[in-house]
Amino acid sequence: MKIESEDFRVREGKEVKLKDWPTRVKPFYRSKEHCQEMLSDHIKVLSRQQGLLYAHNRYAVLLIFQAMDAAGKDGAIKHVMSGINPQGCEVFSFKHPGTEDLAHDFLWRTTCRLPERGRIGIFNRSYYEEVLIVRVHPEILRAQQIPEELLDKKRIWEKRYCSILDLEKHLHRNGTCVVKFFLHLSKDEQRQRFLERIDNPEKNWKFSQADLAERKFWKDYMKAYEDCLGATSTDHAPWYIVPADDKENARLIISQIILDTLKSLKMSYPEPGKAHRRELQSVRQLLAK
Amino acid sequence: MKIESEDFRVREGKEVKLKDWPTRVKPFYRSKEHCQEMLSDHIKVLSRQQGLLYAHNRYAVLLIFQAMDAAGKDGAIKHVMSGINPQGCEVFSFKHPGTEDLAHDFLWRTTCRLPERGRIGIFNRSYYEEVLIVRVHPEILRAQQIPEELLDKKRIWEKRYCSILDLEKHLHRNGTCVVKFFLHLSKDEQRQRFLERIDNPEKNWKFSQADLAERKFWKDYMKAYEDCLGATSTDHAPWYIVPADDKENARLIISQIILDTLKSLKMSYPEPGKAHRRELQSVRQLLAK
Repeated sequence: MKIESEDFRVREGKEVKLKDWPTRVKPFYRSKEHCQEMLSDHIKVLSRQQGLLYAHNRYAVLLIFQAMDAAGKDGAIKHVMSGINPQGCEVFSFKHPGTEDLAHDFLWRTTCRLPERGRIGIFNRSYYEEVLIVRVHPEILRAQQIPEELLDKKRIWEKRYCSILDLEKHLHRNGTCVVKFFLHLSKDEQRQRFLERIDNPEKNWKFSQADLAERKFWKDYMKAYEDCLGATSTDHAPWYIVPADDKENARLIISQIILDTLKSLKMSYPEPGKAHRRELQSVRQLLAK
Repeated sequence: MKIESEDFRVREGKEVKLKDWPTRVKPFYRSKEHCQEMLSDHIKVLSRQQGLLYAHNRYAVLLIFQAMDAAGKDGAIKHVMSGINPQGCEVFSFKHPGTEDLAHDFLWRTTCRLPERGRIGIFNRSYYEEVLIVRVHPEILRAQQIPEELLDKKRIWEKRYCSILDLEKHLHRNGTCVVKFFLHLSKDEQRQRFLERIDNPEKNWKFSQADLAERKFWKDYMKAYEDCLGATSTDHAPWYIVPADDKENARLIISQIILDTLKSLKMSYPEPGKAHRRELQSVRQLLAK
């Protein structure tokens, strides 16, 4: 069964109701082994495409991962991107902003980490936190020191979407291809994964009391995600809602979407011009002597 | 005679014809000494205002300087800003972009240098070069490695204005106050200053053959400036066209505009809340023992 990226894409301008989007779909694999095989096939092509991106040196690709805790962001990045030459790929995990970050506008810290042409940049969390966690916990907004008189409290999220949309439009026009993944996890599957993190000593480090506290805000988060996904999915910087209750399946879907995106760029290895070819031939003769 | 900032401001949406804007106006000073006195008065207030900006810690101020060679950008920055505490003020001179800069979108390198809240950032040249020198010398655009298929050649400058306007709108909403100066020099005054740079050994280092080459493109530059100033002057991030044939007068005008801008922010020293005042008093008693 072919994975159709389109099935998971949020159409531009379309309202999002997360309960209409599944957290689990029929697996695209028949067995664990088959899944592994499919994923390594994907990775092989991905690795070739990334080499092409690097040689072509016109486009940058920015992959954004957002999700609730334990949805599998880290695992997806690890398993999908591990076959990629790290010279052409950088991952940034955005945790609590530091003093220097807070002293700038809310897009600044991530903008400084944008990928160069020819490279894939991965944001594990991103500027989208500014309309998600900040929305659920407005006390964070107060710490951002924005002048009171400029804060249009009624329309603040709308204006932040606007800043984000403007940024992504600018990036698109200048050759950065932005693709955004929301790993859609059910509340019950999160519970299972938290229990596993507590029961399995090797996973203990992944659990903190704070994760449980956030779980109480589940509804608020879903509301914030719905609003955000609907407002900021565009044709040139789409959101994909990836069913995440089955980690393996999620990784297959994500890798397929990345592949389709890279292929859509229609890149080719730079062809040498006549002069360059002549030059190459004359150097060849020299070296062959 | 009072200096009216408004006289030099480009109204939002207004077309700019540079020949209608003077490169020299009646001096606001009566003598060299009077000028020096006025400027140091300005600087004193500026220095106080900057201390307030720092304590208030909500706004950042970005001052952008653009001009033809020898118009006096460096001198204006030196003479106007020298009384300011360097802890609250940073100057960045943007020369030829490096490899890392070119590997990103055209706003990236300057965005990374944006001032923090509480500080004044000065851009000596800026992202505006991207619609000025790059427009006059389109070969620079080719070196920027933007994917051919995304380059809308007919509307490229318009789209760059759009990116710039979006950025400045976002900065404004988030507390960065942007003020832009075009130092308006006559072609003949430039000739005089170049001659002086050649005749005065202490100024030789300031002259390069390349400056003369650019002079040939004067008309193209004026056209690019006119278009840019008209398209990107807004109420929240205005351009000021400063007559620059008289350096001293230009510095008085610039310092007045910066002062008026800072005053318009209506800042005050943070007032301690009741709890903080109580705390201060109890610490006071401890220290006084």
